[in-house]
Amino acid sequence: MTDIKIPKATAKRLPLYYRYLVFLHDEGKEKVSSTELSEAVQVDSASIRRDFSYFGALGKRGYGYDVVNLLEFFKKILNQDTLTNVALVGVGNMGHALLNYNFKRTNNIRISAAFDINPEYTDTIMNGVPVYQNSDMKYQIGQQQIEIAILAVPKDQAQEITNQLVDAGIKGIMNFTPLRVSAPSDVRVQNVDLATELQTLIYFLEQDKH
Amino acid sequence: MTDIKIPKATAKRLPLYYRYLVFLHDEGKEKVSSTELSEAVQVDSASIRRDFSYFGALGKRGYGYDVVNLLEFFKKILNQDTLTNVALVGVGNMGHALLNYNFKRTNNIRISAAFDINPEYTDTIMNGVPVYQNSDMKYQIGQQQIEIAILAVPKDQAQEITNQLVDAGIKGIMNFTPLRVSAPSDVRVQNVDLATELQTLIYFLEQDKH
Repeated sequence: MTDIKIPKATAKRLPLYYRYLVFLHDEGKEKVSSTELSEAVQVDSASIRRDFSYFGALGKRGYGYDVVNLLEFFKKILNQDTLTNVALVGVGNMGHALLNYNFKRTNNIRISAAFDINPEYTDTIMNGVPVYQNSDMKYQIGQQQIEIAILAVPKDQAQEITNQLVDAGIKGIMNFTPLRVSAPSDVRVQNVDLATELQTLIYFLEQDKH
Repeated sequence: MTDIKIPKATAKRLPLYYRYLVFLHDEGKEKVSSTELSEAVQVDSASIRRDFSYFGALGKRGYGYDVVNLLEFFKKILNQDTLTNVALVGVGNMGHALLNYNFKRTNNIRISAAFDINPEYTDTIMNGVPVYQNSDMKYQIGQQQIEIAILAVPKDQAQEITNQLVDAGIKGIMNFTPLRVSAPSDVRVQNVDLATELQTLIYFLEQDKH
C-alpha cells in the first residue's frame, strides 16, 4: 500500500477526501459519485477520478464509489489507524486556538505536549495537554517519540526554536509563523501562511472583477 | 495590468514572491537571482522564471532581477497600493490570534471590524479593532464597504454566519472552520483547513520513510 507513488497534488487532496468520506459515513451514506465529491471538496470531478485511479479505486458508472471501501482504503493510506502525537511550541493566542482545535475528531492526531517560556503557562495542563518549559523540549520529544511539531511562536524566535526541534529529532514542522524557517533537507516544513492566503483571496477577487 | 491572465498556480505564488521581495528591499538588497528566490520561497527556480515571464519580467543572466522594479510590479498586481479592509467574525481563540496577526506589516490588509455574539467582547475595542454584535454585521459591512470576511466561528455556526455574510454583500470568505460552507458561485471561499494541513504533513513523512 505504501509503495504507491502518487503525484504531490493528489497526495495533498487525500486528507480532504478522507474527511468528507468520514462525514458521509456518519450520515449513513453508502455511495458517493465523483460529482457529489467534487461539489463537497471543491475539486473538479475529472481530477477526483484521476486521483482515485492511482489507487485502483474505480467507481461504477451510474453508481459511484462505495463509501466504506474508500474509507478503509484512505484510513490505511493516511495512517489514520495509528494515533499520531504531535508537539506544539508556543501557547500564545495561536497556540491556544490550536489546543482548542479538535484534530482528533476527524483525524487521528493529538497534541500530546506543548512548550512555552511563559511561567504563567508552563508546568500547567491546558485543554488536557501538559505545557512544558522550552528547556524540556529535547527530553520530552525524545521520551514521547514525537516526530511532528507545530510552530506557533513569535517570528523572532521561529528559527531558534526550529533549530531546537531539529536537534530534538523532529522530522516535520507545521510552521504558523510568517518566517520561512531553514531546516535540514530531511526535515519537512509545511508553511501555513495566513497573510499570503488572505492576499491570494484578495487578488482573486480583483481578477474576478475584470 | 489587471488584464494579464495567469495560471492559478502562478497567482497563488505571487503573494509569496511579493513578501520575500519586501524583505529583501528592507535588507537593502538591489537584485535577486531566481536561485536565491527559489531557496527562500521554496519554489523551484524553473517555475519562478516561468511565473515571472508571464508578467514580462525578465531577469538578466548572471545579474538576476531588480528588486525595486519587481516590487513595484507586484505591488500593482497584488493591489498592495490600496488598503484592503476585512471583517472578522468570531473573536474566540482563533479570532484573537488573527487580531494579533500583523497582516498590515507586509501586506496592505487590515481587520477593520470584528463581530461576535459574546457580550464580554462586543461593544469593546480589541487590538484597536471594534467588536460589534453579529446583528450589526449587515449594517457595518455595508457602511465600511467590506468585501472580504474571515470566518472564525464554531463549526455549528459556520453556515448560518456565511449566509449572513453573503446577505451583507461579502464576496470573499477565508474559512477557518472545519466546515466546507456553501456559498453562491460569485462568492469565493478559501478554506484554511488545519487538520488537513497537518494530516498531509504526516502523510508525506510516512511516504519519506519508504
